[in-house]
Amino acid sequence: MALFLGIDGGGTGCRAAVADDAGRILGTGRAGPANVNSDPDGALSNVLAATAEALDGTGARPQDLIAVLGLAGANVTSAAQALATALPFAQSHVVTDAVTAARGALGDTDGIVAAIGTGSVFAVCRGGRLRQYGGRGFVLGDEGSGAVMGRMLLARALRAEDGFEPMTPLLRTVLQDMGGIEGVIRFASSNPPAAFAALMPRLLGADDPAALSVLAAGVADVRAILARLQADGPLPVVFLGGLGAHYAAALAGLWEQRAPLGSGVDGALAMARGLTVGA
Amino acid sequence: MALFLGIDGGGTGCRAAVADDAGRILGTGRAGPANVNSDPDGALSNVLAATAEALDGTGARPQDLIAVLGLAGANVTSAAQALATALPFAQSHVVTDAVTAARGALGDTDGIVAAIGTGSVFAVCRGGRLRQYGGRGFVLGDEGSGAVMGRMLLARALRAEDGFEPMTPLLRTVLQDMGGIEGVIRFASSNPPAAFAALMPRLLGADDPAALSVLAAGVADVRAILARLQADGPLPVVFLGGLGAHYAAALAGLWEQRAPLGSGVDGALAMARGLTVGA
Repeated sequence: MALFLGIDGGGTGCRAAVADDAGRILGTGRAGPANVNSDPDGALSNVLAATAEALDGTGARPQDLIAVLGLAGANVTSAAQALATALPFAQSHVVTDAVTAARGALGDTDGIVAAIGTGSVFAVCRGGRLRQYGGRGFVLGDEGSGAVMGRMLLARALRAEDGFEPMTPLLRTVLQDMGGIEGVIRFASSNPPAAFAALMPRLLGADDPAALSVLAAGVADVRAILARLQADGPLPVVFLGGLGAHYAAALAGLWEQRAPLGSGVDGALAMARGLTVGA
Repeated sequence: MALFLGIDGGGTGCRAAVADDAGRILGTGRAGPANVNSDPDGALSNVLAATAEALDGTGARPQDLIAVLGLAGANVTSAAQALATALPFAQSHVVTDAVTAARGALGDTDGIVAAIGTGSVFAVCRGGRLRQYGGRGFVLGDEGSGAVMGRMLLARALRAEDGFEPMTPLLRTVLQDMGGIEGVIRFASSNPPAAFAALMPRLLGADDPAALSVLAAGVADVRAILARLQADGPLPVVFLGGLGAHYAAALAGLWEQRAPLGSGVDGALAMARGLTVGA
């Protein structure tokens, strides 16, 4: 009898669940980060560790499992394929964690998922077909994300110091805390996107013209993307991620909103079970 | 008798000139790149090599020289100070190459210098006092630069592929040449600013709505900065750098424009001679 494995892995950790073909969860597991592009070896060992924990006591073996893995970095298809080849499971399908998060949040229903935290990514399920939008990373995309808004904050601080836009109390504080223009430039050239996103607490709830302007830019970007995705026919929106609640409040009333039905692991498991149902 | 050394060094090379106190050039030299922040050891050895060539046949020694060095990366003051300490000259003053370029371009006159190529930096000389603006780098600044416009082009290509803005012939070509969405993301995550700036030939002169829009954004940014710098009283503008001619044409008629009076080495030499005149 086939068993099913769902994995959800990203920059902070990796979770696994094993289920039978009735959908009953037989075991779960957790392990460390699993970004298949930035750390393929770590991703492989953490996926295997989380799976071993989930299999513990079930009597099943890895080669009995039909697996769907939603992993950060899997948009780099060569990395995703290399991992799938290295895994011991009966079947291994590696997709991005955005896809499994969307499938988990929407279940079998149509809708739009906006997952916004350090980065941002969108998914639309229409007529049962799921498609990802955005999620292009800190340099070229990630509209409305914490990292992009943190970068806007720093760029504004530098421009204000040059007199190119008004200095505000928040911008002055940021410049002082970081060691002036030179400190801000050094921070920007030596830190990953998560460090920019860690500036978000300075922006959220701040009664400062620069903060309000940066937050408004984020809301405008996310609103424009969602409006485009709604244009083919209205769908309910599920907001996920560290800034999900912020955007749910900022965009309340524009479209129907829903709470997520399940997690990324739920989504991966549902996709794994669907592989045999559909076959 | 004191001799004077002027050095102008950046990412592509380093030039030196030695002059006497009447300003007569006694010798010149060239060597490799000299970015004092990204490659301090290389900067030191190339500065010394260019100086040795300039001193050849003059009978003078390094310890006879009063030196001003305009070097890329010198906005990181710790790196600039470390280099100044390591140099064998009688006096060593390390400033950014933007300062020496501005001094060379303006001579003893007041004016505004807009140096725009891979990056962008502005300088204003008013009443004989020189101040730098912008030049904050690819992540947070460099408004109107080739690298920033190249990044805009790629971001637009990704957004067009998602249907968030109109697809154009140029954007389609860029996507095809780079291997689609995944290729563009890979390019952006693994290349320095100069690689983004190398996309400029695709933009300049292209009769494509996306190209015109990106170029217009650059012109608007540079125009806004120059308008702000002109606000304290009109000054002639000197455009330098790989995109200098582009902006000189795009902004013709708005302000008086001038050709540069001299090079960055000329500026460094003038500053070195001014150190004793002013003392």
